[in-house]
Amino acid sequence: MLSKENIQKQIVEAVEDVKATTPLVGSITNVITIDFVANAQLAAGGSAAMVYMGEEGAALAQAGRAFYINMGSLLPVHEEGVIATARAAHETGTPWVLDPVGIGIGSLRSMILRELKAYRPSVIRCNASEAIALAHEWGLETQGAAGDVKGVDSTETVSEARAAAISLAKWTDGAVTVSGEVDLITDGELVAHSSGGSALMGKVTGFGCSLGGVVAVYAAAATPFVAALTAACAYNLAATRAQDKAAGPASFKTAFIDELYNATAADIAHNPFTLEEA
Amino acid sequence: MLSKENIQKQIVEAVEDVKATTPLVGSITNVITIDFVANAQLAAGGSAAMVYMGEEGAALAQAGRAFYINMGSLLPVHEEGVIATARAAHETGTPWVLDPVGIGIGSLRSMILRELKAYRPSVIRCNASEAIALAHEWGLETQGAAGDVKGVDSTETVSEARAAAISLAKWTDGAVTVSGEVDLITDGELVAHSSGGSALMGKVTGFGCSLGGVVAVYAAAATPFVAALTAACAYNLAATRAQDKAAGPASFKTAFIDELYNATAADIAHNPFTLEEA
Amino acid sequence: MLSKENIQKQIVEAVEDVKATTPLVGSITNVITIDFVANAQLAAGGSAAMVYMGEEGAALAQAGRAFYINMGSLLPVHEEGVIATARAAHETGTPWVLDPVGIGIGSLRSMILRELKAYRPSVIRCNASEAIALAHEWGLETQGAAGDVKGVDSTETVSEARAAAISLAKWTDGAVTVSGEVDLITDGELVAHSSGGSALMGKVTGFGCSLGGVVAVYAAAATPFVAALTAACAYNLAATRAQDKAAGPASFKTAFIDELYNATAADIAHNPFTLEEA
Repeated sequence: MLSKENIQKQIVEAVEDVKATTPLVGSITNVITIDFVANAQLAAGGSAAMVYMGEEGAALAQAGRAFYINMGSLLPVHEEGVIATARAAHETGTPWVLDPVGIGIGSLRSMILRELKAYRPSVIRCNASEAIALAHEWGLETQGAAGDVKGVDSTETVSEARAAAISLAKWTDGAVTVSGEVDLITDGELVAHSSGGSALMGKVTGFGCSLGGVVAVYAAAATPFVAALTAACAYNLAATRAQDKAAGPASFKTAFIDELYNATAADIAHNPFTLEEA
Repeated sequence: MLSKENIQKQIVEAVEDVKATTPLVGSITNVITIDFVANAQLAAGGSAAMVYMGEEGAALAQAGRAFYINMGSLLPVHEEGVIATARAAHETGTPWVLDPVGIGIGSLRSMILRELKAYRPSVIRCNASEAIALAHEWGLETQGAAGDVKGVDSTETVSEARAAAISLAKWTDGAVTVSGEVDLITDGELVAHSSGGSALMGKVTGFGCSLGGVVAVYAAAATPFVAALTAACAYNLAATRAQDKAAGPASFKTAFIDELYNATAADIAHNPFTLEEA
Repeated sequence: MLSKENIQKQIVEAVEDVKATTPLVGSITNVITIDFVANAQLAAGGSAAMVYMGEEGAALAQAGRAFYINMGSLLPVHEEGVIATARAAHETGTPWVLDPVGIGIGSLRSMILRELKAYRPSVIRCNASEAIALAHEWGLETQGAAGDVKGVDSTETVSEARAAAISLAKWTDGAVTVSGEVDLITDGELVAHSSGGSALMGKVTGFGCSLGGVVAVYAAAATPFVAALTAACAYNLAATRAQDKAAGPASFKTAFIDELYNATAADIAHNPFTLEEA
């Protein structure tokens, strides 16, 4: 098993690589939080470009160092756009991150998600209910019944999604990050838990979506597991700091992006996390 | 006529119910202000989910406790999406709120708005020109000529829209809220005027749109009239408080969402409003 | 050559006209930054309305005093929407501003941009790489090879784009504004350089897009060259002031919009710029 020190060293390298090289990371992401995703990616040090169409997504997946696909606010164009982009990322070996937000709402969304199984996202970013629902959608082994998704918020706990997350990570040969009070990150072999954050994260739209976008930024410079863990640590650190400056959810969001921008590689690597075997 | 005290009691109950139960409220809303709508809904205590497609809107209208439809930034997909969703909400008895923003721009928008007449929105949230234009579009009795809509801003005063608002409320058997310097809220029997707010609300995009979204949140827990009045009182209170902390429109918006989140049920119920018969 | 004093007088008049008359300025603009565009237009004193469809864009181009077209986040609907709107603006003599963001990504975008050549945008707002790429796309004389666009960020300097900008301005008989550390604004005869701003502008999405939207607001009240220069001066002034109040990119953005709103006509006109012949 990799030591915590080794992983912290990889986190430092990922953060510094991104700040030094400003990797281009394309996204197909939902319109509710697209501004938050882009600004979080820029704050972390990436270069953001958002598109809809398959030809454009594929071009960015080839030209960029990572790609982010978020299934929120589905339009008919997404059927062609998302699938062509995921295929291009898979074929060129560009790491890509999937956020299956909204899974369970509507048949087009389910159909696209089933297609994406073959393109094995490098990282899946989701909440507990979404992890369980996606593992069921993909026919993977989980412990327990299919999650009952209520809109876009989770009705299960992170620990209830542990088996599903490990199954997903084993299938993709990548990593899965399940957001919750304590975040779970796994590559199917290791399970990390990242703590910190703030209850105010649930009172602002887009913390989950933008975390996925920032995972993609770090995936340009690290393994899927380290990228997911780096993003979780950065988010939990910045949110803890932002909470002290906030008078409510909107000033919290502003302070959060500022703190994400100001966080050093060492600060991020030393935000509390634990490590165990899966 | 309901007493003011009785209505204040219902406002308190609506605010507390929402904070206690986090009702799922779906939306089809415009892309300009979609982030503001979602964050205002979350600040008020709701759970927000935004979609485009009819199948998804209908699913959320059935699964959720209210729905919000805002006609801004129209796409071809809205024809099917908006109508299917409004029909589903109407058929399942889910309260739904219509913001006819942009009425008068283009023929598709007019066509969709005409179709929506049959699905009787629980609350219509609009400015004065939009109230008058919608009453004309629906062939309802108003006093005076059709409003001359200039883009998305009103060229009429709230009092000029009083007759149109009452006609609309009688048709829908719901409520209408007309935003202006003093807001008018009516269910066709009662007319309330809610005061407070700030001139800076006109210098930030989305105060009208997000008010509609928050009306939908309260419609999950109150009658259309009380939901509309609760949202107006909450907005006028939060804006008054935010103005004191603002250095301009952007810091005003941040402070506003913070204040909306921090406002207590009693504070909202006691923000100044008057009550009279229609 | 127009004197600097004469141009400063025109800047003052443009700013004051806009604040006095609240011109309606329609936009077809990308979803990533649409909220920032609208709020910047409102802060400058305009009335913003955003649409997608050709019929609606054409109606706003006819009813409004200027129009803004931004090519980011392309959808299939943009083919009809953008072209019909640009044609309507051109035919009715409504000034319109083009931001060719994303040029080089995908074939639909290139096709639409080629079509727009005939409708001669009043102002083109772009970065250095985009100016060079657009001049090549339109077959205009430039010095040097076609720019190599990397996502949406520039890989060339503003001075490298000088010849391309002058060629574009001569073709359109309008103005071109190339954003960079020092902004270049030209109408093909004069070249102005506007300085100020902040490095944080590159760490927030939408400074370029929203600058284009504000150019359109001023184009309602000034020549293309003066409109472009007024917007550049306003942005550089507000960003310089905002930087002093910022703890990071998000608080910088908030302070920037506040400062844009608070800037006086005289302050904007006296923000440093130089003037020379092309």
